[in-house]
Amino acid sequence: MNYEHIFDQAIERLHSEGRYRVFIDILRNKGAYPNARCFAGHNGPKPITVWCSNDYLAMGQHPKVIEAMEEALHDVGAGSGGTRNIGGNTHYHIELETELADLHGKEGALIFTSGYVSNDATLSTLAKLLPGCVIFSDELNHASMIAGIRNSGCEKKVFRHNDLEHLEELLAETDPEVPKLIAFESVYSMDGDIAPVHAICDLADKYNALTYIDEVHAVGMYGPRGGGITDRDKAADRINIIEGTLGKAFGVMGGYIAADQKVIDCIRSYAPGFIFTTSLSPVLVAGVLASVKHLKSSSEEREGQQRAAATLKQMFRDAGLPVMDSTTHIVPLMVGDPVKAKKISDVLLAEYGAYVQPINFPTVPRGTERLRFTPGPAHTEEMMRELTDALVEVWERMEMKLAA
Amino acid sequence: MNYEHIFDQAIERLHSEGRYRVFIDILRNKGAYPNARCFAGHNGPKPITVWCSNDYLAMGQHPKVIEAMEEALHDVGAGSGGTRNIGGNTHYHIELETELADLHGKEGALIFTSGYVSNDATLSTLAKLLPGCVIFSDELNHASMIAGIRNSGCEKKVFRHNDLEHLEELLAETDPEVPKLIAFESVYSMDGDIAPVHAICDLADKYNALTYIDEVHAVGMYGPRGGGITDRDKAADRINIIEGTLGKAFGVMGGYIAADQKVIDCIRSYAPGFIFTTSLSPVLVAGVLASVKHLKSSSEEREGQQRAAATLKQMFRDAGLPVMDSTTHIVPLMVGDPVKAKKISDVLLAEYGAYVQPINFPTVPRGTERLRFTPGPAHTEEMMRELTDALVEVWERMEMKLAA
Ligand SMILES: Cc1ncc(COP(=O)(O)O)c(C=O)c1O
Ligand SMILES: Cc1ncc(COP(=O)(O)O)c(C=O)c1O
Repeated sequence: MNYEHIFDQAIERLHSEGRYRVFIDILRNKGAYPNARCFAGHNGPKPITVWCSNDYLAMGQHPKVIEAMEEALHDVGAGSGGTRNIGGNTHYHIELETELADLHGKEGALIFTSGYVSNDATLSTLAKLLPGCVIFSDELNHASMIAGIRNSGCEKKVFRHNDLEHLEELLAETDPEVPKLIAFESVYSMDGDIAPVHAICDLADKYNALTYIDEVHAVGMYGPRGGGITDRDKAADRINIIEGTLGKAFGVMGGYIAADQKVIDCIRSYAPGFIFTTSLSPVLVAGVLASVKHLKSSSEEREGQQRAAATLKQMFRDAGLPVMDSTTHIVPLMVGDPVKAKKISDVLLAEYGAYVQPINFPTVPRGTERLRFTPGPAHTEEMMRELTDALVEVWERMEMKLAA
Repeated sequence: MNYEHIFDQAIERLHSEGRYRVFIDILRNKGAYPNARCFAGHNGPKPITVWCSNDYLAMGQHPKVIEAMEEALHDVGAGSGGTRNIGGNTHYHIELETELADLHGKEGALIFTSGYVSNDATLSTLAKLLPGCVIFSDELNHASMIAGIRNSGCEKKVFRHNDLEHLEELLAETDPEVPKLIAFESVYSMDGDIAPVHAICDLADKYNALTYIDEVHAVGMYGPRGGGITDRDKAADRINIIEGTLGKAFGVMGGYIAADQKVIDCIRSYAPGFIFTTSLSPVLVAGVLASVKHLKSSSEEREGQQRAAATLKQMFRDAGLPVMDSTTHIVPLMVGDPVKAKKISDVLLAEYGAYVQPINFPTVPRGTERLRFTPGPAHTEEMMRELTDALVEVWERMEMKLAA
């Protein structure tokens, strides 16, 4: 048994596939987003423009959020000091849960330390509470949902992405008497397409299945109050459990679910991933509270972001760049090769000060490697113009195809 | 299939066993810890004294920590905006990993969103990288280690708590050719006892096993630099992976591992729980950085905490209260019944303004329900005297036995 050798081989596999990841070393500049500083090792230190942040609406820099966090920091201190049950349940947590329940029109909500943990903990626990449960899972579901489903130990049936016929086929072939759960996302973050929420709920009604939706890339972003696609499409009351993150459009960190009080109480009481961990820092919770409240009444950020995404897509298309067929705020450019994707990203950063991360396996399937741009309300047309020119230049230099 | 009914039953089980949890609603007062505010529903709002925080050294209130967080908040904003690979790798993260590696004398370190996630992600991934791996797990290991081991899908052999003979028996009966991992804690947080670290490492050497130690309740607290029990006992170089939290003695939130660069690189590259989640907020990371640095050079907090724990244990013993045989900073009082434990806790809070949470199943085995006190450097002798008197009074009122 030579452990070193095994670890060496595991790393070697990544290098040989061209998907060994190097994290770039940056600091964003508050008040000047999407501007950031890049540190040594990437032709830095130098100023760069960030094109791949999931702080979609720049709420992580919003004065109300910063102020709320500063106030909490001075009022109660850095951490919660305990699990939710043992000393770590602060008044902020309770307020935020009330706010999130209201956002989704649900009886209750429950905060987790991340969106990943909320998916993993909720799905694995839910399925254990429902003996014999079968989970119907969209094939493009996020790694955290896959982890939760896997860790639940129950039977999983994977349906083709957004394919209602396939989902119905799988539902129909399953024993009507066993518990069923359909798990899917609203906005798929790497392709930028949207699930047919109402149609999935119709199937859930027909086959008496529970519904679980991951709105991680939609909360704060869609719907008149930022409640996500279920808010926009008036479908929230048809979904049993809505899951979201506090770390993307809301700009801070953490995750949550919203559901009937009963379901919330079950997860709260039975999920190890909720119970046995220090609760979210009250400083973060205070920031999220300000962010959620703000986005409930302001649509300015959402609209600015949608405009920026539409503009960038149009510029890419006009330049013949292979922009993917996204119907949302996400702007993916298909590359189809991990080494090339990384190369383009490296050149953009080193020569043009444009930071966009290559998206390789296991984040997307092999052969669909891409660059994923997330322009926000603060990215100007001039920045977009420069980025487009840079991409065309790199595309030509690497002898990759541009559309006529 | 009636889902409501199943959820009702699950909640009913908790009520009938007397272990339905009610989270108390508090806010700590920065600068006045262990003082806090308790909100309505518990005879509040009123001031209380917190006796069950895991912010053992009150670092969550330390001026250096608060200042560092405030600075980061204004410099870079609230959240990281992405995963470590996609836009969420800040200079703070890199600095903290360097600092933590140094703290444990290891080549590298890796930050996770919590201690729970660091255990779950590392153990499950490690065992998957080592085909056929058998994990030897102390029977009192924390829920997050149990989750990681379970999620690894590999064979688990549970040894009796801190029982070297039993561990050796299990190691000896296992195929010498398969990979082995011994997973244990240094300080067991509910009993307050310590693992025989060197003796376990001797067995690991003898049977060619990797070692994994959870130092969650020891980092910051033990050893000349706060590197934990492995620092105190000079055993860090004998352990392959040291795991810790940033949310207890360091006072903020988050988790980490420290190990050889190779192991770090493997977990960084293969663990879904590390890869697919928004990285820790730079504000928190900046606070932890200040906290770790401070506790590396200052022993004042550690010594004050140890003194307070020794004093409180002595007072409890003198009063005939059933204090458990802890050799550490943790002061557990055995109750042995979930309903009584909750009752005592309720009376202490409502009548005496003393907040200590009852510890019931599943946190501890059934029949060993207890109260767990964590006095810190800021708890005065007068507070301890009042607490002891209150406990004696409640013990008598409930007709429970006091030692002669
Ligand atoms: C679809 C989806 N769900 C869940 C998560 C996890 O959320 P968080 O970053 O808050 O852990 C992510 C990304 O990180 C995601 O893309
Ligand atoms: C032994 C042990 N390991 C791990 C954890 C999890 O650490 P964290 O609170 O940072 O998630 C805890 C408690 O929360 C613990 O007691």
